[in-house]
Amino acid sequence: MPPVIFLLLSLLLLPSSHAADFCVADLTGHLTPSGYDCKKEAAVTVNDFVFTGLGKAGNTSNLIKAAVTPAFVAQVPGVNGLGISAARLDLAPGGVVPLHTHPAATEFLVVTQGTICAGFISSTANDVYFKSLNTGDSMLFPQALLHFQVNCGRTTAVAIVSFSSPSPGLQITSFALFANNLPSALVEMVTFLDDAEVKKLKKLLGGTG
Amino acid sequence: MPPVIFLLLSLLLLPSSHAADFCVADLTGHLTPSGYDCKKEAAVTVNDFVFTGLGKAGNTSNLIKAAVTPAFVAQVPGVNGLGISAARLDLAPGGVVPLHTHPAATEFLVVTQGTICAGFISSTANDVYFKSLNTGDSMLFPQALLHFQVNCGRTTAVAIVSFSSPSPGLQITSFALFANNLPSALVEMVTFLDDAEVKKLKKLLGGTG
Amino acid sequence: MPPVIFLLLSLLLLPSSHAADFCVADLTGHLTPSGYDCKKEAAVTVNDFVFTGLGKAGNTSNLIKAAVTPAFVAQVPGVNGLGISAARLDLAPGGVVPLHTHPAATEFLVVTQGTICAGFISSTANDVYFKSLNTGDSMLFPQALLHFQVNCGRTTAVAIVSFSSPSPGLQITSFALFANNLPSALVEMVTFLDDAEVKKLKKLLGGTG
Amino acid sequence: MPPVIFLLLSLLLLPSSHAADFCVADLTGHLTPSGYDCKKEAAVTVNDFVFTGLGKAGNTSNLIKAAVTPAFVAQVPGVNGLGISAARLDLAPGGVVPLHTHPAATEFLVVTQGTICAGFISSTANDVYFKSLNTGDSMLFPQALLHFQVNCGRTTAVAIVSFSSPSPGLQITSFALFANNLPSALVEMVTFLDDAEVKKLKKLLGGTG
Amino acid sequence: MPPVIFLLLSLLLLPSSHAADFCVADLTGHLTPSGYDCKKEAAVTVNDFVFTGLGKAGNTSNLIKAAVTPAFVAQVPGVNGLGISAARLDLAPGGVVPLHTHPAATEFLVVTQGTICAGFISSTANDVYFKSLNTGDSMLFPQALLHFQVNCGRTTAVAIVSFSSPSPGLQITSFALFANNLPSALVEMVTFLDDAEVKKLKKLLGGTG
Amino acid sequence: MPPVIFLLLSLLLLPSSHAADFCVADLTGHLTPSGYDCKKEAAVTVNDFVFTGLGKAGNTSNLIKAAVTPAFVAQVPGVNGLGISAARLDLAPGGVVPLHTHPAATEFLVVTQGTICAGFISSTANDVYFKSLNTGDSMLFPQALLHFQVNCGRTTAVAIVSFSSPSPGLQITSFALFANNLPSALVEMVTFLDDAEVKKLKKLLGGTG
Repeated sequence: MPPVIFLLLSLLLLPSSHAADFCVADLTGHLTPSGYDCKKEAAVTVNDFVFTGLGKAGNTSNLIKAAVTPAFVAQVPGVNGLGISAARLDLAPGGVVPLHTHPAATEFLVVTQGTICAGFISSTANDVYFKSLNTGDSMLFPQALLHFQVNCGRTTAVAIVSFSSPSPGLQITSFALFANNLPSALVEMVTFLDDAEVKKLKKLLGGTG
Repeated sequence: MPPVIFLLLSLLLLPSSHAADFCVADLTGHLTPSGYDCKKEAAVTVNDFVFTGLGKAGNTSNLIKAAVTPAFVAQVPGVNGLGISAARLDLAPGGVVPLHTHPAATEFLVVTQGTICAGFISSTANDVYFKSLNTGDSMLFPQALLHFQVNCGRTTAVAIVSFSSPSPGLQITSFALFANNLPSALVEMVTFLDDAEVKKLKKLLGGTG
Repeated sequence: MPPVIFLLLSLLLLPSSHAADFCVADLTGHLTPSGYDCKKEAAVTVNDFVFTGLGKAGNTSNLIKAAVTPAFVAQVPGVNGLGISAARLDLAPGGVVPLHTHPAATEFLVVTQGTICAGFISSTANDVYFKSLNTGDSMLFPQALLHFQVNCGRTTAVAIVSFSSPSPGLQITSFALFANNLPSALVEMVTFLDDAEVKKLKKLLGGTG
Repeated sequence: MPPVIFLLLSLLLLPSSHAADFCVADLTGHLTPSGYDCKKEAAVTVNDFVFTGLGKAGNTSNLIKAAVTPAFVAQVPGVNGLGISAARLDLAPGGVVPLHTHPAATEFLVVTQGTICAGFISSTANDVYFKSLNTGDSMLFPQALLHFQVNCGRTTAVAIVSFSSPSPGLQITSFALFANNLPSALVEMVTFLDDAEVKKLKKLLGGTG
Repeated sequence: MPPVIFLLLSLLLLPSSHAADFCVADLTGHLTPSGYDCKKEAAVTVNDFVFTGLGKAGNTSNLIKAAVTPAFVAQVPGVNGLGISAARLDLAPGGVVPLHTHPAATEFLVVTQGTICAGFISSTANDVYFKSLNTGDSMLFPQALLHFQVNCGRTTAVAIVSFSSPSPGLQITSFALFANNLPSALVEMVTFLDDAEVKKLKKLLGGTG
Repeated sequence: MPPVIFLLLSLLLLPSSHAADFCVADLTGHLTPSGYDCKKEAAVTVNDFVFTGLGKAGNTSNLIKAAVTPAFVAQVPGVNGLGISAARLDLAPGGVVPLHTHPAATEFLVVTQGTICAGFISSTANDVYFKSLNTGDSMLFPQALLHFQVNCGRTTAVAIVSFSSPSPGLQITSFALFANNLPSALVEMVTFLDDAEVKKLKKLLGGTG
């Protein structure tokens, strides 16, 4: 009897052989507006859907005492085309994730250790939505709005964040302004900042001009 | 005068030469989250949009006395990227399409011969939406919900079904559980089924473990 | 034991009570760009997903000897928001579905009786994709492109058509041009047609101006 | 000078007053295919974006020794229309999340305590993607595919899961089959299960028929 | 200090290296339903986002005294996948953009010089939405509906039009009917036009049959 | 004969009466994630699709010597749900549109008078894409990326800009940072700016704290 079933099975499943279920990224393939080329299903393994890096603390020995460990399409090829990804955030005492946006994603943050003060600013009236979040608390940051997170406790803080895109993007405002060759005069015109301040920050963050 | 028109025509239509109208699948090309690479338009013919297989009865000489003849992207490359496909369903007397989902599509079924009893189950409260459908009757099965169709008449039943995706996918619950190497103990834990039952069905459907 | 399960069940299903599965149209409610307001799930029945009208021949006693019986959101409220709908097409001998578009949908047609000659025109180079379709043959008409169907057999022809939208829309070119008060002079300018022809068709199709 | 700025500000921001940034659910309002009506922005507070319930262990004193604590649109109205939500999963030793799908969402799970064995089954060839996940490991479950999670350690396991929809839905296969009035004979036909097994499970899970 | 920042920067930005921000079309690459392959970001320059052709008047020395200068994906590769494009419309006195649709886009037209009379026809009841637009006036043409523009002033008219797609497509009704080999008898059946009229226009517009 | 046609017409168009073509915003109705409730079609007029405000220069007598005149859903209710809108930008000599993002839209700018220097910054490596645009030149600003425009000529500059959303939103970075009650100490932490600078700009832009 099974052979008959399998005959049926083949007939039934033939159209499904075109990867309707998922499209694991072939990271060496082409990139399109909808994501990467799909790996052939025969080459897909469970490890394309699994990531073990979120369990390890990131290195926060840097100026902002912060580290982000991504689980994006580059780390978890299975998220390709599926509208989700994640990351781990480590904030040493005094740590800061500077003001930034994710151009292509909404973010949902869950504090798993410590206390994080987080906020976002709406565009309508520049309203500030700010909250002190303890372990277990969670907060949403709507797509593309300016937001930030700071460790406002005395111990290391950790969060698991998820995004509504496999490639959320990250634009840190001060890096966008000061870590490149955008002429200082232009920066000043479009931000109202002083020349001295702009030049100081360009120097701090590696910019020129 | 026509030459002038054609000059204009060329100018006007130049940007349209980038296949805004359709993207016929190059089935030998790359697959992406949005579908297959497009064939060059010069290679497209009317047959990329036509399928003649839905007029022929499927072979129902199998355990479930059922056959599905797909008109998906593999059979009709023109549906690539367009959010639609179709299939023919043949159910001999006693025929059954076992409990299943289409992970990526809503289904609309029109009975063209015989009587089909069909149902789906909502997730909210496990409500059953069940109906006996005569020739000419139609029924919708919302995306990704469990549903089934059985021939509840005395003669062969036939239906034309359409899907809201060029690759609707098909996950038959009992095949997903019993037609692979998922360990019996695990199947039992996640379904509440007895060990004997699980082993019997694994044997029937070709599974191991 | 079941009570414990049901306790769990309640906890688990609480979030699902917000109609993630489907959004049956409340046709007396508001209409939004994504479709109608959802009926409360308690008021939903299987008949919101079932339509019995496609089994009955439409009345083709009219000038074009054709009838379209829709199974759109107005007839099958369950399709609301789900990207699919269907219709039955009856074409008496000599019957014609005049040149038209569905502004919001791709169409897939399956001939269930007789012979239908159908075609669509691409925008890139005005290429004609034309085919004579016998019973059981099917054809795709990509979204928003001009297309037509004529009975090219000697007997009544019937087709089941499906659409990639719950409200596909229908714009019949000659009705858009001649069945309203668009001034004849303007019609002539934008179509290259003669004044006499335009006035004759306005009279035939009920237009003025 | 500031007054002039504010004049400008008003002019510039006038169009933004229509909530382009977010659409916090008015849970007492209408539900549409795209989500709930938006609250007036004046009534929105930071608490519409914050949820404090994920820090508390769910009650696992039930048959499956599992609890799911949702942070869906009902709990976090700010996720409305934004393609993301989250939940906390508690699994006591021996705990199980039975075989299920989320009809409308992909899931990403991060183990924050203990060891979870998880798997999903693809539809193409009923392939099993199975992995034992330790604290810090994460795994993706593609949209609408059957999957399960079991505590395969000796201590309580906890996970933070996120979804690609504000209302992911949840269809537990055995509840869909056995926790309602779907007639036993029909269940048997569409699953290949024995009558005795079906009746036993209907009794266990509260079904009738 | 900067080196430390840059270490952090690298960590933070690693996932962003997958072009979440934009996907500039590689016009020599593959085309998919979501658009063209993305250029490697290292090869992207500001000129992929800039177009200088809209400042130059199009050549209106043709039968319809009109010219369209596109800024579509072929001219501005940066629009690939981004849901926008633009064009310049020049209409000499007496100029006409014949009745047409954009199958894949809504159009927004801003008159920058002269007077343009424009209209579209809804499908619901063939209602005409018609307006005389002076310099500075603007008008929307909803996706895929028949519309037209004529110069109804005494001087050259110019407009900037934008589209909700990088490849809006363009189907001019009279060219679709008369500029190809669609048999005259068929054209007559599907439009109610006279044989003489159809043949005259086929001759004018270069069609055969 | 016409009465027969109209009988047919009624049958054919019945389903189309559900506004498949467009959904003109009822600005007094509900707002949902997909846009506003639709006006009844009987109440729709051509003026719902027309806007006459883009022909008039905005008032640039303000600190930044700039004015934006929107043609968004509030001004042109017909754009509701259609993925497009527009605006006019006036820049007096020395005028500046400060650094900003549109969280929900890509922007396409066409200079119709004068010279505008414009730029955006990518998130991948903080690359600057900068160009001086003369009359007739156009430039794309991808969704949600930081960008700016300044008048770099000696005369007034004007541009027509279009957006890929009916409600693009607008978040001006310096207003988001300094025109509200976000505590200065927090601003300094998330931007690296000096306390004195932050306080000066808060005073200039009307912020407190």
